[in-house]
Amino acid sequence: MSELRKDCVTGRWVIVSTDRRKRLSDFHLEPAQVTADADCPFCEGHEQMTPRELLSYGRQGSAPDTPGWTLRVVPNQAPVLRVEGSLDRQGEGLFDKMNGIGAHEVVIESPRHEATLTTLDEASVEQALWACRERIQDLKRDMRFRSIVVFKNHGAAAGAAVAHSHLQIIALPIVPREVRDEVDGARAHFETKERCVFCDVLRQEIADGRRVVAANADMVALAPYAPRFPFETWILPRRHEARFEEAPRQEFASLAKMLGDLLRRMHKALEMPPYNLLVHSAPVKESVGDYYHWHVEVIPKLTKMAGFEWATGLYLNPVAPEEAAQVLRDFRA
Amino acid sequence: MSELRKDCVTGRWVIVSTDRRKRLSDFHLEPAQVTADADCPFCEGHEQMTPRELLSYGRQGSAPDTPGWTLRVVPNQAPVLRVEGSLDRQGEGLFDKMNGIGAHEVVIESPRHEATLTTLDEASVEQALWACRERIQDLKRDMRFRSIVVFKNHGAAAGAAVAHSHLQIIALPIVPREVRDEVDGARAHFETKERCVFCDVLRQEIADGRRVVAANADMVALAPYAPRFPFETWILPRRHEARFEEAPRQEFASLAKMLGDLLRRMHKALEMPPYNLLVHSAPVKESVGDYYHWHVEVIPKLTKMAGFEWATGLYLNPVAPEEAAQVLRDFRA
Repeated sequence: MSELRKDCVTGRWVIVSTDRRKRLSDFHLEPAQVTADADCPFCEGHEQMTPRELLSYGRQGSAPDTPGWTLRVVPNQAPVLRVEGSLDRQGEGLFDKMNGIGAHEVVIESPRHEATLTTLDEASVEQALWACRERIQDLKRDMRFRSIVVFKNHGAAAGAAVAHSHLQIIALPIVPREVRDEVDGARAHFETKERCVFCDVLRQEIADGRRVVAANADMVALAPYAPRFPFETWILPRRHEARFEEAPRQEFASLAKMLGDLLRRMHKALEMPPYNLLVHSAPVKESVGDYYHWHVEVIPKLTKMAGFEWATGLYLNPVAPEEAAQVLRDFRA
Repeated sequence: MSELRKDCVTGRWVIVSTDRRKRLSDFHLEPAQVTADADCPFCEGHEQMTPRELLSYGRQGSAPDTPGWTLRVVPNQAPVLRVEGSLDRQGEGLFDKMNGIGAHEVVIESPRHEATLTTLDEASVEQALWACRERIQDLKRDMRFRSIVVFKNHGAAAGAAVAHSHLQIIALPIVPREVRDEVDGARAHFETKERCVFCDVLRQEIADGRRVVAANADMVALAPYAPRFPFETWILPRRHEARFEEAPRQEFASLAKMLGDLLRRMHKALEMPPYNLLVHSAPVKESVGDYYHWHVEVIPKLTKMAGFEWATGLYLNPVAPEEAAQVLRDFRA
């Protein structure tokens, strides 16, 4: 028998198969191997192949857009949204539109082509997360932006166009649907209970234990109760805070440690899966500090969306989160 | 410059590139070829490989679950949800769940393995749609069901597990998110304007013409103003009606004709694309007749979801709907 389970933040239902252990061979796996590329625009020595850098770390006197860095942030060469121009909001009869104004940046985590979040040392992962924080703090000064998302596509099957490991930052002039749904759900919970729903989830999951993958002083990695995808895992800070970019330095170190640990477990358990990593943080102009709680979601790419999911927004997940958490707990980093 | 466009029913934003014509070679195409399969459970003569049939057409005296049919409806061999049992709604602390109760059926459109909606004659396509109507009418008598969805996955890349052409019907004990969002959006429009938003869209799109792909006496195929995917196309009945299963016979004939026409255009223009077909109809127990309007969505599978879409629910569409409609108009059936 399968179960219908409801996510307590967004109200989103999923169908979880709880009656059989899925074998890895049932999935369509496309291992995310980083293949060599002599023309990689993100490699050291190829700085002229990207737009001019916005930020770099590790330079010991070398000039911008030259070698000698440990991390670079550059504008995306083919941005989804552009900084230049005005929003020019317009109606077309029934319809609403605005110009594609925003920012689209790339955080190149290492000068080495083959490095990934699984193989980088903790200090380098922390540096990449810290660079995102710095860029968000800067982008927030542009009053047109209402939401800033940080994400990673790792592996071609997860949408990566460039194999060299990188994070992406997109600043948007709207609050998109997923962010809206989470914030609204968290607000509704707070209005009824005067508590943060994510803090409530943390308390219940730590006490229960079945869905906890790993924990350290600041961070807890857990399989959510109603996951959309097999092995979907969230990392939540224990301390309540609405914004990723407001977290203290120590939590960046703890997050880097936890992220490396989780990704290495997935790497072993799921044979180098492609994955998406998403940072969920509060919309920039809204006062949601009481009830929103930033977190990171990691989604290995193991299944395909099909007609049922498109028609309903209801996800079929063949692996129960209790099983997934057990598997990931068993694979040590 | 790209544009942010808002769907006027659900409020969902998309980012549409309007500045460059995308070439077909920019997409990752996996043509949906129907490969031969001696063990296909849906072929004539293999009736014993499926659960016992719920409905069949075309029998001239032959017994159920034997050859001599033009269409069969059978329960899914590995159903997502099952009819047997009780919902047993429960809480687990913060979380909510219920048993996976529902129905999951398969409409086998033809006894011939290689037939598809692109090659079947109009009468056979109409018969397949009519069988869905009959099954929905029957499933609606089960008072546990609140929503019934009809969909098709065509091609492995679109999630088809069996190549032999079939539709799927799933009855759900909840109203899922996509259906809820559409119904709520249509209600909000009606409350402000006393008009159906889909009727408004039809009127505006027919007058404008840029996004219309094809039209006949009863049906209009159009590229929506804010499409999530390249070449996403909707077929709307001109006559206002909330429920697919309440449409008159004549509209089933017109829909069959329009669907065959549209799919043949896509087949030629996009080189046999895999696709998903979704029937959107009103939730079964709700009185939404004034403002909901059934329709069909066809989504060719040309792009991948990546981190940005998962983080935001905001889709990046590299093909403007005006371009897509133009291309599909140019390819005649």
